[in-house]
Amino acid sequence: MAVVGLGPAGEQWLTPEARQVLAEATDLVGYGPYVDRVPQRPGQIRHRTDNRVEAERAAHALSLAREGRRVAVVSSGDPGVFAMASAVLEAAEDFPGVPVRIVPGLTAAHAVASRAGAPLGHDYCVVSLSDLLKPWEVVADRLRAAARADLVLAIYNPASRSRTWQVGAARDLVMEHRDPATPVVIGRDVGGPQETITVTTLGELDPSQVDMRCLLIIGSSTTRATDGGTVYTPRRYPA
Amino acid sequence: MAVVGLGPAGEQWLTPEARQVLAEATDLVGYGPYVDRVPQRPGQIRHRTDNRVEAERAAHALSLAREGRRVAVVSSGDPGVFAMASAVLEAAEDFPGVPVRIVPGLTAAHAVASRAGAPLGHDYCVVSLSDLLKPWEVVADRLRAAARADLVLAIYNPASRSRTWQVGAARDLVMEHRDPATPVVIGRDVGGPQETITVTTLGELDPSQVDMRCLLIIGSSTTRATDGGTVYTPRRYPA
Repeated sequence: MAVVGLGPAGEQWLTPEARQVLAEATDLVGYGPYVDRVPQRPGQIRHRTDNRVEAERAAHALSLAREGRRVAVVSSGDPGVFAMASAVLEAAEDFPGVPVRIVPGLTAAHAVASRAGAPLGHDYCVVSLSDLLKPWEVVADRLRAAARADLVLAIYNPASRSRTWQVGAARDLVMEHRDPATPVVIGRDVGGPQETITVTTLGELDPSQVDMRCLLIIGSSTTRATDGGTVYTPRRYPA
Repeated sequence: MAVVGLGPAGEQWLTPEARQVLAEATDLVGYGPYVDRVPQRPGQIRHRTDNRVEAERAAHALSLAREGRRVAVVSSGDPGVFAMASAVLEAAEDFPGVPVRIVPGLTAAHAVASRAGAPLGHDYCVVSLSDLLKPWEVVADRLRAAARADLVLAIYNPASRSRTWQVGAARDLVMEHRDPATPVVIGRDVGGPQETITVTTLGELDPSQVDMRCLLIIGSSTTRATDGGTVYTPRRYPA
């Protein structure tokens, strides 16, 4: 079976490899809105699931594969980045003999970065703000470490209906080590019909602008926002 | 003009968006081997350059664009990750009125990760070991910070003909905070004809196995290597 990355949105970022694996699958398994992004094919069965039951969904997909079905588990972005690949590989340890192939995809951080310029042009750190699966103290430690080491930060899952105070807390932690004028990019629904890219600063980052469809990029000390609204981090770092 | 990511290798990872921008370009500019990866089109002019003259190459491309040419600067992987996008955007500050579009691509870290499983399935840090453009002490600080914060590490540019001691030094720095049994993935020429994926451990990482065509992934304390040779980092982090 395969775990397939669809990219952040649209067909413009779906790789030929992913397209082919999807076309050859007998069964698609995944969170409903992601399954809906795959073009319909006669005879192909769609198993649309909730977003919250990753382990169950993985086991279901592996069972189908063990029965001989050609299964594609679909994931937005890159399946290896805060998505289905880990859940499937973990579940696959109980399904010896079912080979799992991971088909990579464009991840949201790179799509958002490209719309703003090149904020990830130098060393960076990728952190999920979700504390559903890890304690907040671990998140906070990592934000502090990245801030101290002057790494650009790409932040996934910054907010949700129930996750509301974390963006403000992250901003305050990073600001202990970084100038309030540091450029920040808020990418929302990148590649989708409601895409917005907002360039602001760390000091002016308003958590109420950030929801579950957003990805945040916080610059380092060398990240530059031009008058034209382009944000990039030079590869050169001063001695 | 556009800065276009080709992905790490091959056509399987070239996005439809990138393919279209390349097809519409009158001029391709880039490091020779990358330009050679783009299918020939009648009338399209190819400006093949050396790998070491990024600023010059960027200015040349921008000059062509200012003359009205449709220019695509090509980059391996994602142009925004240790590649041409930052160099072009920096040079573009001297070319007001020449708009620059960044076309994202699959980056090598995600391709290597997918071949091994999902080692980047949890928070991670992306660092270039090249000290051509930044002092080694900055690299060392970032490696230490990532190691202390138990972040997975994806390491670009680990070695070259002249960069030979850095992999050993990085291994030793990380090992101050991490078990020698930590899984390590060495991806070489991923997606290309000479692809190899080697799974080893931090303690057994042999720098002589790592050259300029490699990308390294060093696991965190939760990264698991299965008996079948799959490496993944679960999304769940223990409290």
